[in-house]
Amino acid sequence: MSSAYVSPQDAQRPLFVGVDVGGTGIKLGIVDDRGQSLAETRIETQQERGPADAVQRIRQALDGLLEGLGLDWDAITAMGLGTPGTQDGRRGMILAPPNLPNWRHFPIRDELSKACEGKLVAYANDANAAAYGEFWVGRGRDASSMIMLTLGTGVGGGIIIDEQLVDGANSFGSECGHIIVDSREDARLCVWGGGRGELEAYASASAVIERTRERLMAGEESSLQGRVATEELTGYMVYEEANRGDKLALEIIRETGRYLGIGIVTLVHALDPGLVVLGGAMNFGGEEAHAGRVFLESVREEFRRRAFDVVANNTAIEYARLGGDAGYIGAAGLGRLAWKKANRTSAP
Amino acid sequence: MSSAYVSPQDAQRPLFVGVDVGGTGIKLGIVDDRGQSLAETRIETQQERGPADAVQRIRQALDGLLEGLGLDWDAITAMGLGTPGTQDGRRGMILAPPNLPNWRHFPIRDELSKACEGKLVAYANDANAAAYGEFWVGRGRDASSMIMLTLGTGVGGGIIIDEQLVDGANSFGSECGHIIVDSREDARLCVWGGGRGELEAYASASAVIERTRERLMAGEESSLQGRVATEELTGYMVYEEANRGDKLALEIIRETGRYLGIGIVTLVHALDPGLVVLGGAMNFGGEEAHAGRVFLESVREEFRRRAFDVVANNTAIEYARLGGDAGYIGAAGLGRLAWKKANRTSAP
Repeated sequence: MSSAYVSPQDAQRPLFVGVDVGGTGIKLGIVDDRGQSLAETRIETQQERGPADAVQRIRQALDGLLEGLGLDWDAITAMGLGTPGTQDGRRGMILAPPNLPNWRHFPIRDELSKACEGKLVAYANDANAAAYGEFWVGRGRDASSMIMLTLGTGVGGGIIIDEQLVDGANSFGSECGHIIVDSREDARLCVWGGGRGELEAYASASAVIERTRERLMAGEESSLQGRVATEELTGYMVYEEANRGDKLALEIIRETGRYLGIGIVTLVHALDPGLVVLGGAMNFGGEEAHAGRVFLESVREEFRRRAFDVVANNTAIEYARLGGDAGYIGAAGLGRLAWKKANRTSAP
Repeated sequence: MSSAYVSPQDAQRPLFVGVDVGGTGIKLGIVDDRGQSLAETRIETQQERGPADAVQRIRQALDGLLEGLGLDWDAITAMGLGTPGTQDGRRGMILAPPNLPNWRHFPIRDELSKACEGKLVAYANDANAAAYGEFWVGRGRDASSMIMLTLGTGVGGGIIIDEQLVDGANSFGSECGHIIVDSREDARLCVWGGGRGELEAYASASAVIERTRERLMAGEESSLQGRVATEELTGYMVYEEANRGDKLALEIIRETGRYLGIGIVTLVHALDPGLVVLGGAMNFGGEEAHAGRVFLESVREEFRRRAFDVVANNTAIEYARLGGDAGYIGAAGLGRLAWKKANRTSAP
């Protein structure tokens, strides 16, 4: 994506700003009415300096982007902002995000608007924003409904039904990492205080590391045994050794795929979106890598094995396309939707 | 409901027809723009005579209702039809419903329209129609989103997000009975060819009977032991003996509530609707009965135990209000929605 910017001359007006706040970095960019990016940049989150400071630095970074394009703030019609949860979407508050401990109970939507010429700011969960980006211009661009699962340290999600993102009565919608895939009392626990037996406890990078470590400690043969003697185990190491054909690493990846497949059966039986997209960093290299292909095939196999025929045969499960750009593009898209809604024109 | 008809003079125009096809009976009625019923009746399904015959008898029954009200077909603006699945909603086809074996691959939407003066007919899954009825004028009348679980021989469902019923890319949306609550390879099987470990295999009347029978066969003490010596075990018998304080029957009911609670956690974590409604005949007498109160409390307890605090504290789980009328009223409501959409006015 990053190499294919559209020029201000070729861009389809109106233009929107998207901001995607993460635990270590903030991605921001300027996006046109078709979801094409004109410019983007990344700044450090520096969470310890708090959200008010970050809002000022976001404004400065956007000034820089606009200047580079020869545009000013009048060119921007609306903005979108995604942050990690928890949050109160209605009031535009970030509440208590586990990875931003110094960002608690801050009215981030309105503060960002104030810092940016009073522009309309749409506010969403980061995983929801990424899902909307992937839906708008990525893998879901031809779909009307889509579920995206974002696989990283945790498991996030975004559900789009008939062009609308599911936000929920308590801004808690689309928390697909917290659907139950194992109801036993001794099921695994989520990393960040989630419940027992939830998808995140099996299909996140943290879960992959935990399960791999347990089997290495039990003495199972694996090329990872040599590496953990000198390095701390990471999901990336599991990916690397799986790509080299390590049996244990491949088994862990297949097992992760099976749990994800179970979760997808549940989501698809409830919502029948026709398309499920796997995003996030924990994709084992995606379609280009042996490990990534093994993972996707295992997900699909478990899904087909358990789902009703009509949905098993008519639901695509695919990797996402936009990578790390999905968040800011999706946030911009949500800004666009909010502006269209406020102006009572039809979207998209 | 049945005692509180609105008169043609007091009814809010326009008027709609709702038809709810079940395995043994077809309920139909005339409903006003606010969801108030003017008249209703029930005819036998007589499934062995096939769907074309039923369509003619539906027309005749509606003629009778209209005549009784002093109205003619000009008074009807649109119609709605709910049937058991499977179905192809886009093409208006009933496909292969397990409880209507002689009703296969029939274009029921268009045939009903033809038989009824060419009126617009909205077509939906019966559980979805019932959920919409409950949402429109029942327990969900003040909500904007709602999940309804219909507990009967099987478990059906209906999901409404921001006033819209989730139908799905393959007319398979809202099949909440088929979300997975037990992922083990030896988990229970659904009654009608569903998958393993799905909610229906634990929280349907069939599942209650099966689990009770197993424990009676194992020799557990229960007042049901005396009854099964002379009668075939039914869900109603479990309800009756639980109401009389039988320990085993109460245990089965609590266990059923726990499984349902697990399924609700999954649905609420994904969709955060704010309201979950339990409909269908298998409600153990509902709020008026001891058994029904034990059941609902068990559902809520398991939900609160597993759900995130913010949703646990802000999600109501309640019994449905409309009973057997939800289906035809909801079908009429879907006819109303389709007509409003076709006329590009805003709904509701």
